[in-house]
Amino acid sequence: CAPGMLQRGKTPGAPTSGVCRPWGVRSRGRRALHAAPARSREVMLSRERYSVQRLPFSRLSDSDVAFFERVMPGRVVTNPEELKPFNVDWLKSVRGCSKLMLKPQTTAEVSQVLRYCYERNLAVNPQGGNTGLVGGSVPVFDEIILSTVLMNQIISFDKVSGILVCQAGCILEKLNEYLEEQGFIMPLDLGAKGSCHIGGNVATNAGGLRLLRYGSLRGTVLGLEVVLADGSALDCLASLRKDNTGYDLKQLFIGSEGTLGVITAVSILCPQKPKAVNLAFLGCQSFAKVLETFTTCRAMLGEILSAYEFMDEKCMELVERHLKLSSPVTGSPFYVLIETSGSNSIHDEEKLNYFLEQAMTSGLVTDGTVATDDKKIKASTRLICISLIHQTLWSLRERITEALTHDGYVYKYDISLPVGKLYDLVTDTRARLGWSAKNVVGYGHLGDGNLHLNITAESYSHSLLDAIEPFVYEWTARYNGSISAEHGLGFKKKQFIQYSKRREAVFLMQRFKAMLDPKGILNPYKTLPSSS
Amino acid sequence: CAPGMLQRGKTPGAPTSGVCRPWGVRSRGRRALHAAPARSREVMLSRERYSVQRLPFSRLSDSDVAFFERVMPGRVVTNPEELKPFNVDWLKSVRGCSKLMLKPQTTAEVSQVLRYCYERNLAVNPQGGNTGLVGGSVPVFDEIILSTVLMNQIISFDKVSGILVCQAGCILEKLNEYLEEQGFIMPLDLGAKGSCHIGGNVATNAGGLRLLRYGSLRGTVLGLEVVLADGSALDCLASLRKDNTGYDLKQLFIGSEGTLGVITAVSILCPQKPKAVNLAFLGCQSFAKVLETFTTCRAMLGEILSAYEFMDEKCMELVERHLKLSSPVTGSPFYVLIETSGSNSIHDEEKLNYFLEQAMTSGLVTDGTVATDDKKIKASTRLICISLIHQTLWSLRERITEALTHDGYVYKYDISLPVGKLYDLVTDTRARLGWSAKNVVGYGHLGDGNLHLNITAESYSHSLLDAIEPFVYEWTARYNGSISAEHGLGFKKKQFIQYSKRREAVFLMQRFKAMLDPKGILNPYKTLPSSS
Repeated sequence: CAPGMLQRGKTPGAPTSGVCRPWGVRSRGRRALHAAPARSREVMLSRERYSVQRLPFSRLSDSDVAFFERVMPGRVVTNPEELKPFNVDWLKSVRGCSKLMLKPQTTAEVSQVLRYCYERNLAVNPQGGNTGLVGGSVPVFDEIILSTVLMNQIISFDKVSGILVCQAGCILEKLNEYLEEQGFIMPLDLGAKGSCHIGGNVATNAGGLRLLRYGSLRGTVLGLEVVLADGSALDCLASLRKDNTGYDLKQLFIGSEGTLGVITAVSILCPQKPKAVNLAFLGCQSFAKVLETFTTCRAMLGEILSAYEFMDEKCMELVERHLKLSSPVTGSPFYVLIETSGSNSIHDEEKLNYFLEQAMTSGLVTDGTVATDDKKIKASTRLICISLIHQTLWSLRERITEALTHDGYVYKYDISLPVGKLYDLVTDTRARLGWSAKNVVGYGHLGDGNLHLNITAESYSHSLLDAIEPFVYEWTARYNGSISAEHGLGFKKKQFIQYSKRREAVFLMQRFKAMLDPKGILNPYKTLPSSS
Repeated sequence: CAPGMLQRGKTPGAPTSGVCRPWGVRSRGRRALHAAPARSREVMLSRERYSVQRLPFSRLSDSDVAFFERVMPGRVVTNPEELKPFNVDWLKSVRGCSKLMLKPQTTAEVSQVLRYCYERNLAVNPQGGNTGLVGGSVPVFDEIILSTVLMNQIISFDKVSGILVCQAGCILEKLNEYLEEQGFIMPLDLGAKGSCHIGGNVATNAGGLRLLRYGSLRGTVLGLEVVLADGSALDCLASLRKDNTGYDLKQLFIGSEGTLGVITAVSILCPQKPKAVNLAFLGCQSFAKVLETFTTCRAMLGEILSAYEFMDEKCMELVERHLKLSSPVTGSPFYVLIETSGSNSIHDEEKLNYFLEQAMTSGLVTDGTVATDDKKIKASTRLICISLIHQTLWSLRERITEALTHDGYVYKYDISLPVGKLYDLVTDTRARLGWSAKNVVGYGHLGDGNLHLNITAESYSHSLLDAIEPFVYEWTARYNGSISAEHGLGFKKKQFIQYSKRREAVFLMQRFKAMLDPKGILNPYKTLPSSS
């Protein structure tokens, strides 16, 4: 196993260099369109910082590989070159050295694999589209990669209830396309939709852009099929909107990042496709005005409000500089993207126009662009109203992550805070880091109280990381925020769980883990701290 | 302990009579307005049927009572007369014989009580408003009643985020009134709102009338504070819309009916109060038309649809006969109640009118009444449009439960099914029971696939119950339905869990129970079957 991002080898405790040798990664984007970061950037997240040592799992033997070949002939990958992209995360921030990837097609195969691994004490890393941002989706050492890539069948869709049942490896965007043909949409949407798997979405309790409107996966996921660590299948794949018969076991697997079981199928409630979708891209002179615009718009747009995203001017600068996207609205320190989704385009436009007039008249918003569904050019007081395709406007928000990766090494934080406090963290972090950071930017799902704080630098440095952490976590904890709103803890944040969860809660989580996976073979080194 | 509904005493296995001696119950309604069933009706749910024997918990001693008096002086009830209404459920179908009720005011007091009970091996029955319908809220034998009645403080409400934090004993209707003053509403509403406690709502994962619009408590409950069986407090009382730091422990307590912990405080996301609420009460000539009306209305009313309830003509007859409520629409075999809630009354009325015209023109609906928010009389093709206060129309639906209790002994079933199959169960049950039942009625939350099947008879009889069960459960299982959509399993349905949950799932639930409450002191004899 070549030295990767994680220090390991024959001499525990030996010092490690900060950067490894260069290597190639197949370009696989969070969206097919917006492919992987342009520069290959590797980081040594050292053992000193994360205190990770390989646990005493068995080592893969030839007879293991032979067994898997018998179970799923032709779907067993051992070629190191082929394995490379699955050993590294999308951000290229962590890398494992798995020597085996398995591609089951059925739940029975997943059961067979796990039953064998459990008996043999072989560690397993379940992997969906590998689009996670906290190092949860790749092996840390030599865990077997169990990919859902071939579990991509839609099992059923009921047009009356809107309930979709599908295998875990279905790609989010494909599911959405399938549903759109039937007049429905998926209840979640995120930048990685072109690559991410629905099983991974559920395993990480993905949030994204539609949460404001359709709620979290905890409400929309109606059933799950899960294979437990010992290979036993747990069928909770109900297709019912309501079911109060006993404890809701599936909830424990939602957001458990593959550490309690491997999700093999999902039943999910899908909303109807809205008949009209409108967008407004607005400039605000202060964050206070961003907040006031939110409360005004929530009151005036009510049930048709489907997204309220904000971003600061630094974000827009980076999107323009690195991706050559130009914003139709400029010259403001803050921008908001408002989306409405409704069943009547005339009503929706009327509501949006009332709101925009109010927002302009009261000085909440100084400049803006509106893209209505029917592509007509609309005029409204002082607003430069241009017909733009929605995707262009959404790109300004969705491609910030990508633009950041072009700016240098990115320190990513995904924070929940009381909305009033949301941007203070960006300001305070910027002031603290001064010139040691290249850019400190803030954007996110304001409607959900979710800030994406990102810090870029020319390259990774321990000292900069030390200046950021635990500062950001302590700041967040002071206001009872969450240090991971939607990204999860994965490998990179698991040691910081105590900033958002009390000791007794973490202890209880560890007891659940021990009960469901007593040997700890499922996605080891992730989600929960090694000790508490 | 006097013989109650459950056979117990010194001679295990002795035959029991079907009906106990009469006794008085203080009138406490599911709503203050619609008080308890008119007739006192007791049932002996015999040990032969439910196989329940008192488990070897300790018996309450004088020194126990003295301890509790020290912990919460003046809030310890031992007077048998005072205890009576808390020993029996609202339906008067099950009765326990607790000799002690405790009324803590704080989480610390709940902790003290449970720590003591755990050490002493005393069983505890957590109780909210005691409005449950499956015997989950009253003691089965002599469990100590731990009431949340004095835990009724609102802790905080944030107008920007709409997040309410309150103690578990707050009454749902009071919370809603408090929120309405601030321009918000609770995300759930149910007939029992005048009595039920929010803690009980969460513990039973209550569904109700707004679920179609605002989703289940699994999505809206953001945090919980829970005291575990051993008295340790688990603080997961986050006020964040998104938090992916570790496993979502609170989910396990939602819907666990007080068997895993006592919920002491709740953090919940509240929607804005809609500016306009409209109702339509319509008659349909067949259940097929009820279904088609639903799909049409969901498409046309879209985001403003907030309830789609249906009821058969038998329900309306009973409401009229027993409660003297008269329906403005008559002569149809089925009725639907549609509610819209939105932010713009003109838009909403327009949408509703388009839909009604379409429904009338295409013959989906033959008759109807519309009550718009501004009380104006509207005219629409062939519709008799009368201005009615909304409550009157809602009463026709909400008071069916009450009307049924006046009709005789009620066998209640709360079923989830694929909507297309929903009414077939009523028809089949009616055909099966023939004259042995007085009335077989069906109503419910059609939009959620939730049927309330109710069978009335002059009095309780084993033979009628034998004709109904397991027939209803087997029928439901055949179509992968749930034998309890929203009422839970409590005491009366716990032995039937296998009709909706697989053996391995029940086994896992039992392991969770054993882990969190190894002595089994919390709400024993409930939710999970005694053996599997």
